Amino acid sequence: MTETRKIKSKCALQQRQQQILAVFQYSTFSAIQALGCGCVGQAVLSRGMHGGPMTVSVGFAMAVTIAVYVSGGVSGGHINPAVSLAMCVTGRLKWTKLPIYILAQLLGAFVGAAAVFGIYYNAFMEYSDGKLEVTGPNATAQIFATYPAPYLSLINGFADQVMSTAVLLLAIFAIFDTKNNSVPKGLEPIAVGLLIIVLTCSLGMNSGCAMNPARDLGPRLFTAVAGWGMEVFTAGNNWWWVPIVAPLLGGVLGAMIYVIFIEIHHSDPQSGEENEAHAKYELTNMA
Amino acid sequence: MTETRKIKSKCALQQRQQQILAVFQYSTFSAIQALGCGCVGQAVLSRGMHGGPMTVSVGFAMAVTIAVYVSGGVSGGHINPAVSLAMCVTGRLKWTKLPIYILAQLLGAFVGAAAVFGIYYNAFMEYSDGKLEVTGPNATAQIFATYPAPYLSLINGFADQVMSTAVLLLAIFAIFDTKNNSVPKGLEPIAVGLLIIVLTCSLGMNSGCAMNPARDLGPRLFTAVAGWGMEVFTAGNNWWWVPIVAPLLGGVLGAMIYVIFIEIHHSDPQSGEENEAHAKYELTNMA
Amino acid sequence: MTETRKIKSKCALQQRQQQILAVFQYSTFSAIQALGCGCVGQAVLSRGMHGGPMTVSVGFAMAVTIAVYVSGGVSGGHINPAVSLAMCVTGRLKWTKLPIYILAQLLGAFVGAAAVFGIYYNAFMEYSDGKLEVTGPNATAQIFATYPAPYLSLINGFADQVMSTAVLLLAIFAIFDTKNNSVPKGLEPIAVGLLIIVLTCSLGMNSGCAMNPARDLGPRLFTAVAGWGMEVFTAGNNWWWVPIVAPLLGGVLGAMIYVIFIEIHHSDPQSGEENEAHAKYELTNMA
Amino acid sequence: MTETRKIKSKCALQQRQQQILAVFQYSTFSAIQALGCGCVGQAVLSRGMHGGPMTVSVGFAMAVTIAVYVSGGVSGGHINPAVSLAMCVTGRLKWTKLPIYILAQLLGAFVGAAAVFGIYYNAFMEYSDGKLEVTGPNATAQIFATYPAPYLSLINGFADQVMSTAVLLLAIFAIFDTKNNSVPKGLEPIAVGLLIIVLTCSLGMNSGCAMNPARDLGPRLFTAVAGWGMEVFTAGNNWWWVPIVAPLLGGVLGAMIYVIFIEIHHSDPQSGEENEAHAKYELTNMA
Repeated sequence: MTETRKIKSKCALQQRQQQILAVFQYSTFSAIQALGCGCVGQAVLSRGMHGGPMTVSVGFAMAVTIAVYVSGGVSGGHINPAVSLAMCVTGRLKWTKLPIYILAQLLGAFVGAAAVFGIYYNAFMEYSDGKLEVTGPNATAQIFATYPAPYLSLINGFADQVMSTAVLLLAIFAIFDTKNNSVPKGLEPIAVGLLIIVLTCSLGMNSGCAMNPARDLGPRLFTAVAGWGMEVFTAGNNWWWVPIVAPLLGGVLGAMIYVIFIEIHHSDPQSGEENEAHAKYELTNMA
Repeated sequence: MTETRKIKSKCALQQRQQQILAVFQYSTFSAIQALGCGCVGQAVLSRGMHGGPMTVSVGFAMAVTIAVYVSGGVSGGHINPAVSLAMCVTGRLKWTKLPIYILAQLLGAFVGAAAVFGIYYNAFMEYSDGKLEVTGPNATAQIFATYPAPYLSLINGFADQVMSTAVLLLAIFAIFDTKNNSVPKGLEPIAVGLLIIVLTCSLGMNSGCAMNPARDLGPRLFTAVAGWGMEVFTAGNNWWWVPIVAPLLGGVLGAMIYVIFIEIHHSDPQSGEENEAHAKYELTNMA
Repeated sequence: MTETRKIKSKCALQQRQQQILAVFQYSTFSAIQALGCGCVGQAVLSRGMHGGPMTVSVGFAMAVTIAVYVSGGVSGGHINPAVSLAMCVTGRLKWTKLPIYILAQLLGAFVGAAAVFGIYYNAFMEYSDGKLEVTGPNATAQIFATYPAPYLSLINGFADQVMSTAVLLLAIFAIFDTKNNSVPKGLEPIAVGLLIIVLTCSLGMNSGCAMNPARDLGPRLFTAVAGWGMEVFTAGNNWWWVPIVAPLLGGVLGAMIYVIFIEIHHSDPQSGEENEAHAKYELTNMA
Repeated sequence: MTETRKIKSKCALQQRQQQILAVFQYSTFSAIQALGCGCVGQAVLSRGMHGGPMTVSVGFAMAVTIAVYVSGGVSGGHINPAVSLAMCVTGRLKWTKLPIYILAQLLGAFVGAAAVFGIYYNAFMEYSDGKLEVTGPNATAQIFATYPAPYLSLINGFADQVMSTAVLLLAIFAIFDTKNNSVPKGLEPIAVGLLIIVLTCSLGMNSGCAMNPARDLGPRLFTAVAGWGMEVFTAGNNWWWVPIVAPLLGGVLGAMIYVIFIEIHHSDPQSGEENEAHAKYELTNMA
């Protein structure tokens, strides 16, 4: 009996250790994604000399691709709470694992932001004479977290993040759907990167198109403690909660649209035949 | 007898339901492609700050790649009436399915355009003080549909769209031809995206190189009802019909060139041997 | 006897027909590559509004990728006389086929240039008030063929083209070498495209880095007859022959460097073992 | 006995010959990578006309991709001493081979730099009236080796190179880890290229982000002897040793982080099951 309890207790300890290890491992990958912040940093701090819309869009997208690739075999490529939540809601991930994923994603984004700040410490000091500002012509807070453009209303900004993340998740679910399997196994992270290029090139102007609560809140928390102060939360009409709530909502929405409109029809035996007939065949077996 | 009629009637109902479902599904994918309009929007509305030729070309091309990928297993990647028509003409698609495809493509492009307008609503209002203009320095209609450059004559513009779409289809037929199979299975959407990059970087200056009647008419209809008015049809010397008729014509032309010059010679047993001898072998088995 | 002669004569006729067909087929693909000229055209004719270094480099490179892909199963991807000659010299292509390849490549490049001119006819007329100039601020001949920068001496330009094409061929031989097979089958055209991006981004400033006699002479011939006149041959100190002779020389040089330094050591049984030991294994089986 | 000695002596001679051959072979590939210097050259010498941040970042990254591809089957893709050293430290490469690799990498980078200088000789002379300067508005030394931005302190620059190279190696170890195998075999060089795009777009502003001692010292040695003089070593507060020492240190650090945090947990039989359960499965078998 005592023996059994000992084993159980040992198991619990091991599980706890594994969870801590997992947080460390997963946060490493999210930190790599957060290097994307450096792309914005390079464009802003060099005043456009060493970067622009294209380096930011491609750089950030490829940071996501690399982060998904390197974490693929360890954490399953989870670097975005909006994605993890949508997978829980649709039964692809156990709810009990969600807190660990989100904690690790936040921690990683915080650490990645700190790394970017450390690497560009001299550049930050030079850029604005040592002052770290959230708004104004020498603002640098937008390197880390997203802020709304001056013209953007809260409701439009909220809708922006709901819709962008809905498209992101709808496409991600399609990309990883093995029954819709058009993307070859192993190329999914590249397809996700190309998708991020589309979304940031097309929907990035309002507020930088975060689509990822951890990638936004982690670096924002870092700036709050690193010298930008609490204005990072009040700026843009208390904008900070929008890139957290809206992507979570939009992600679930996009995932459910995919499941309801596409996925559940895969297994329909009556329409399956029809589907098959006019789908793959016509496009890929043209000769 | 009555039983049979009932079954038939039930089947007809099911078929109708499936068609409606298909229209919804397919239009989802075309809507994703229409996010490409957002790339033009970001470049125009930010007056070049957040976008330029490269983000538009790469962003639009990757929107096509993603749309083909996510729809691959469901609609066979059909997002362009010029492609669908060319496939009907060459016997790759049943003519009875063409109307459903085109309807869904139009609907999707309309919805995608509406989404872009919604997401950038504040930006549109800010850009031109609330006026939605088709021509002039603050014109924004070109974000959605294509318009000819001032120098472009109708005949040159028509030829432009015939030739661009002919090249598009010729290349698409080659990319998906399993007997010419150089593009690995599953990478076709990426090859199509690269092809769109070539065509928009090289032939995009005259009128934006739509090469897709649905991607042009759908958003144009949206602008007509959303506030730009009927000038979207009269502008550019009644340009609107050119990116509809010319791509359909050019697509069939390009497809037929491929079939006549390339495809029918695949199965020629006499030239087959010769073909094989000087083709694949020499390039790929060099060592 | 007479019967045999008849069959022979019939065979000869068929062979002739097949050669004519091959010229038509192969030139189609080279014409697609020549659409790359349109990328330069778009950047020049829009005075930088719709293109720049990045659209030209990426657009041209992807034109090569697409042309190699679509022609892969038919002509073996041959669109460059410098590549075809290097393959003849190293025994990968029959010398008797070289004339057909080169003829088709020239013809295709000529036709492709004509297509670009036709599509942009109005733009050309607008750009320079109807005058087609080879030099000066409104020059447009460089859209089609390459010309040396003002600072470039003939000897430096010649060396540039020899060295660029040598690197091109060395890398192409490596990419298609099945014994060195790191590029997965079917992705070679993409690797070639990436290679062209490197070469045009890094060695394109002197004279546009043609590295392809057909891609240069075909469009140059077109401009000579289309209105730019014989100055296309005299400009740049009679530059025209450099992008023909130097790439042919450089291509053979690069191919021979690859064969002598790399390829012949593959089959060396003594070094093979050693090679294998420190090569593939250490990099790819790290775990 | 004498016979045996003869054979031994013959073997030693053969081994020596093979080592010399290897140095020649490996340096060829590193020379291709060094063409990346030409991307910086094109942007600087054309004063931004023919290049900018995007051509430099993409051009250099693709030069690495091509160099890794063409050398994959021969040298195992080794073109960076920081990578080779990290592989020795973690037992993936024999220490006895390290000197040959590093010698070849240095030699190749030197030769590649010489090629770029030769190809752009006229452009260099034109750019600064024949004077080769290390600092000032007409400086050209930064085309070959990296120099710190004016604002950068030595300690910040050192940290920059340690951290960048640590990320590089951490990601490279993940990309090539067959137990974490998310990158399909044969696509690793493309993933490495995308990784370099991320790093140069995000961390390139301080000092050009060399992350490779050979790619920095080889071209620097070339500039020292080619006319820029010993100032290439003294400039930037004797900067030259930083991109040698810091990447070697950072590379080992990144590799060890990967091994300690990720790799050694692969084979843990207790966590293995757990790992497997929440990893690959959840992401890739979503349906």
